[in-house]
Amino acid sequence: MFDPASLKYDANGLIPVVAQDHASHEVLMVAWMNAEAVTQTLASGRVTYWSRSRQAFWIKGESSGHVQKLVELRVDCDRDCLLVLVDQTGPACHTNRRSCFYTAVRDGAEVVIMAPSEA
Amino acid sequence: MFDPASLKYDANGLIPVVAQDHASHEVLMVAWMNAEAVTQTLASGRVTYWSRSRQAFWIKGESSGHVQKLVELRVDCDRDCLLVLVDQTGPACHTNRRSCFYTAVRDGAEVVIMAPSEA
Repeated sequence: MFDPASLKYDANGLIPVVAQDHASHEVLMVAWMNAEAVTQTLASGRVTYWSRSRQAFWIKGESSGHVQKLVELRVDCDRDCLLVLVDQTGPACHTNRRSCFYTAVRDGAEVVIMAPSEA
Repeated sequence: MFDPASLKYDANGLIPVVAQDHASHEVLMVAWMNAEAVTQTLASGRVTYWSRSRQAFWIKGESSGHVQKLVELRVDCDRDCLLVLVDQTGPACHTNRRSCFYTAVRDGAEVVIMAPSEA
């Protein structure tokens, strides 16, 4: 049995989570979960983070509609990081881009490599 | 110009870094950098982390030979997480697996889905 309490959380009780598109394999975002968010994500199949700014559960897409359906949750070797493979509806980023990692460093300069989606 | 000091580091001066294989798009590992590690990674083209356990710079592969050649560094929208696309020699994980995320949670149980490489 998998027990969320067996993971290693930081001093704030949080673990970093990488969300990856299960089909395109694009890395969409990194956010945080506490043990209860891990439990809720597995129980509901809807990826649920802990918002550090709001100090509240954050059911991804609850207000925007840009939900993340859980395809698979994976644990790393040190048990201090998670990878969630997701079925992402719409953009993952609050800037309306598919991924939060839309800025590349090329030849020492920052280059925006992804446009916000329309609509 | 990109300035590593413009990133948002945590209370320990660290930022989480997702390493992704640039060709297969597999998520290999998550580790941490401080500002100097970001600078060194960009200058050398060899991905360099800050080891929290050893409290020292960690030039990935320096002892194992399993180096990560930097292909591209990306910054997320909040500037508090990095994505490095890498050319990974051999396994990224200290367990000799390609990725650290070799344990999946399926039907409530942990399943090891990747074998260590031989040799």
